[in-house]
Amino acid sequence: MTFSRLDTHCRKLEAMEHALSMLRVDEAVMMPAGGGDKRAEAVATLAGMYHQQATAPEIADWIADAEAEDLNAAQKTALIEFRRDYLNKTCLPVAFVERQTAANMRSEQMWRALRPAGDWAEFLPALEAVVAAMREEAALRADVLGLAPYDALMEQYDPGNRAAAVAPVFDDLKRFLKSFIPEALEHQAQRRARRPMKPMNGPFPVERQRALGLSMMGALGFDFTHGRLDVSHHPFCGGVPTDVRMTTRYETREFLSALMGTLHETGHALYEQGLPTEWSHWPVGRARGMAIHESQSLFVEQQIARSDVFWSWAMPHLAEHLGEDAVAGWDLEDMLAHVHHVEPGFIRVDADEATYPLHVILRFEIEQELVSGALRPSDIPEAWNARMVEYLGLSTLDNPRDGAMQDVHWPAGAFGYFPSYTLGAMIAAQQWAALEASHPGAREDIARGDFTAINAWRRTQIWQRASTLSTPDLLVAATGEPLSARFFEAHLRRRYLG
Amino acid sequence: MTFSRLDTHCRKLEAMEHALSMLRVDEAVMMPAGGGDKRAEAVATLAGMYHQQATAPEIADWIADAEAEDLNAAQKTALIEFRRDYLNKTCLPVAFVERQTAANMRSEQMWRALRPAGDWAEFLPALEAVVAAMREEAALRADVLGLAPYDALMEQYDPGNRAAAVAPVFDDLKRFLKSFIPEALEHQAQRRARRPMKPMNGPFPVERQRALGLSMMGALGFDFTHGRLDVSHHPFCGGVPTDVRMTTRYETREFLSALMGTLHETGHALYEQGLPTEWSHWPVGRARGMAIHESQSLFVEQQIARSDVFWSWAMPHLAEHLGEDAVAGWDLEDMLAHVHHVEPGFIRVDADEATYPLHVILRFEIEQELVSGALRPSDIPEAWNARMVEYLGLSTLDNPRDGAMQDVHWPAGAFGYFPSYTLGAMIAAQQWAALEASHPGAREDIARGDFTAINAWRRTQIWQRASTLSTPDLLVAATGEPLSARFFEAHLRRRYLG
Ligand SMILES: [Zn+2]
Ligand SMILES: [Zn+2]
Repeated sequence: MTFSRLDTHCRKLEAMEHALSMLRVDEAVMMPAGGGDKRAEAVATLAGMYHQQATAPEIADWIADAEAEDLNAAQKTALIEFRRDYLNKTCLPVAFVERQTAANMRSEQMWRALRPAGDWAEFLPALEAVVAAMREEAALRADVLGLAPYDALMEQYDPGNRAAAVAPVFDDLKRFLKSFIPEALEHQAQRRARRPMKPMNGPFPVERQRALGLSMMGALGFDFTHGRLDVSHHPFCGGVPTDVRMTTRYETREFLSALMGTLHETGHALYEQGLPTEWSHWPVGRARGMAIHESQSLFVEQQIARSDVFWSWAMPHLAEHLGEDAVAGWDLEDMLAHVHHVEPGFIRVDADEATYPLHVILRFEIEQELVSGALRPSDIPEAWNARMVEYLGLSTLDNPRDGAMQDVHWPAGAFGYFPSYTLGAMIAAQQWAALEASHPGAREDIARGDFTAINAWRRTQIWQRASTLSTPDLLVAATGEPLSARFFEAHLRRRYLG
Repeated sequence: MTFSRLDTHCRKLEAMEHALSMLRVDEAVMMPAGGGDKRAEAVATLAGMYHQQATAPEIADWIADAEAEDLNAAQKTALIEFRRDYLNKTCLPVAFVERQTAANMRSEQMWRALRPAGDWAEFLPALEAVVAAMREEAALRADVLGLAPYDALMEQYDPGNRAAAVAPVFDDLKRFLKSFIPEALEHQAQRRARRPMKPMNGPFPVERQRALGLSMMGALGFDFTHGRLDVSHHPFCGGVPTDVRMTTRYETREFLSALMGTLHETGHALYEQGLPTEWSHWPVGRARGMAIHESQSLFVEQQIARSDVFWSWAMPHLAEHLGEDAVAGWDLEDMLAHVHHVEPGFIRVDADEATYPLHVILRFEIEQELVSGALRPSDIPEAWNARMVEYLGLSTLDNPRDGAMQDVHWPAGAFGYFPSYTLGAMIAAQQWAALEASHPGAREDIARGDFTAINAWRRTQIWQRASTLSTPDLLVAATGEPLSARFFEAHLRRRYLG
């Protein structure tokens, strides 16, 4: 049986992924600094062994042989994704990967050293090497996959996503936001004039914030027998589906950033915990790409946890866990003023849900020009500045640190990834609309803190489908129509102009 | 270069050991219960991959080729230990190992289920299968290694240790203890009559006990940039030399068991942290077996941390970390009454340093008879009882749960391991005597809480030698003479009859 040979092979890969994943969690949560060098060596060696085994040439024959076998439906679906995964993993020659890895590592190290001072000129040569390698990579992938170069890059993160389909939706959203943001800011200013924003009644002890976060995670459906919450410098959701490791980071002067971060990661965690367990070792059993993953975190963060009904339920819990003084004298509107604050800024990761997409669209547009060669790396600062001025009214010309040097993605060689963030936000809004159409009581559920029906819908429509469908097909299957910006736009209008 | 091929191979094995080691730590310290099944699967798969790579037949040729190369002294020493390690790993046929693993796993599971009720009769058939496999294993190992069967088993844990050398030393110690223990108990009774033992002023909050333990670990030389202390159900010292993970377990009604456990594991940890870092991927760079490892933990626990001078230094720290009330009204003698309490009992792991060796000698004697076939598994309860009555005056005939069913070692198939515990205690005492001969101020150092010179001696004499010498040769190199019971006996006399 050739399929069973693939199956055994998958279980080996799963064991190595398990180890690599847990070593990364341990490194961020537990490891003392002196353990770093040997840990890096162990992880690099294991990752190399993993890559070697995952890309072994005989697997191509096993796949072809298995395709000729008499398989059940689940095996057939598994095999399609297995072939796609194997093709994506093997389409770059080993010598090229080594050269590219060296260029990317050097550039990321230089970026870490030069970003604090915003030394773009010194950093540029390293980035030029990364962009050159990336263009080579895009061409190689495009050739094997039969895709346009930029699509071949996106394909790694969101299988099936194509610039030709995504760009018009982003254009629509951009047009909308350029007029919406000034309106929302005007609306916000009027509200603030009527009722000034209240400062938080801190400090908020870490242990109390943690208790609050755990209680909210539990209410949202996080299964603590299959996961836990810890602390790390950069919050993440890692581990494996049977043991999801989430982290957050606490500041004592305010509790909202840790809490919203925890709820965001809870969205990622619910997706992992909801994947079909019997397929965990097959590529088809994994979460479907970055955009869908981000749609699950943003579904919890933006659709659920920034809604007025959520806070009408959550306010008493704040008092319970943070203490009566924490929100003494606050009503729902005071809380929402913090949760719905809009403010254009330089930094993507600090952006609110209304301005965030413009940061992404800017990068999406520049990326495509870098891939096509229309833009050279040395032109980035001007292109960046022009768009920042146009989209958000902010100039970054004298400030590369908070401009093109703010993200690790390009310095580390990741191109085609940025769109996923805003695709996730739009997909989350589209899912919410579909859910509400089939379950009109969804908002009342949230107001009662009852997430059972909402999670049941997501489990059936998203989680249990794992990677059986491409990203756009999964969206159609779940919501009945292809990607559209209008759900996210309606969401923003309701929340910020309502 | 064949040696460099071995070197690369060793780095791969080290990476897999690193992952396995850290997964075990994570499992005990962090993992939620629901992660257990998939973790067990991942660890079993990785352990299988490790074994396959470590025992690959081509390595025999690499070793032979490397032995013919022009190597430096370190490489030559590395190669000797590499051959020894490879031989020990490959001397059992794969089919036998699979059969034995199944028998051992079944027996260990049955032991876990049947131990609470002490159901020896129900357990016996599973143990009989384990003993049969163990005798086969001993014969196979003996054949390949050219050793007597029991020696071939011990060789896995303490290379170079032979029953012919160990048994007379154990006999000497046994003779000594049979008269010493009644004397020590009489002495203790007289002291207690003059001054009754004081109950502890608990409860002792966990956070305070933890602060005390961390402060003592630091004073003893534990490097917190290369390790940490956590909590687990069964305390252990794991991880890797650059990142040593220790655990302990706290009870709030008394602080001594957690503290002494922490100090014991600190002894193991100092050994790991003191190994030569540049050899970490070679078998020769590892700690030299179980007896030497236990000598390092017992050196800290018994020679240092149960000494009067240690407590004269430590008493003020108790007050500092546990609070003034913790030892209010206690003087040094009150503390030592707890630290030096002797009491014969059924359970090895609960035994004090004076009675513990008799538990080990009993097992050592029975093990040898099981290996030779002089004793059948069904005879164990009677043999156990006879020796318990003779050595410690306690009968276990109606109580197999606290007799032969108390330890996991035999149910899990580990024979030849028990001697290491008491060898460790004797070696620790012998090392202390050698250290004091070369550094007469060692006790004053402890009284001042200064462990610099003591650790410097251990680093040179033990830690940095790693596995360059066999267990008995390492002892001679460090102390100038072969194993003798007289140092441990003198230690007990000084402490309990002084
Ligand atoms: Zn996210
Ligand atoms: Zn120990």
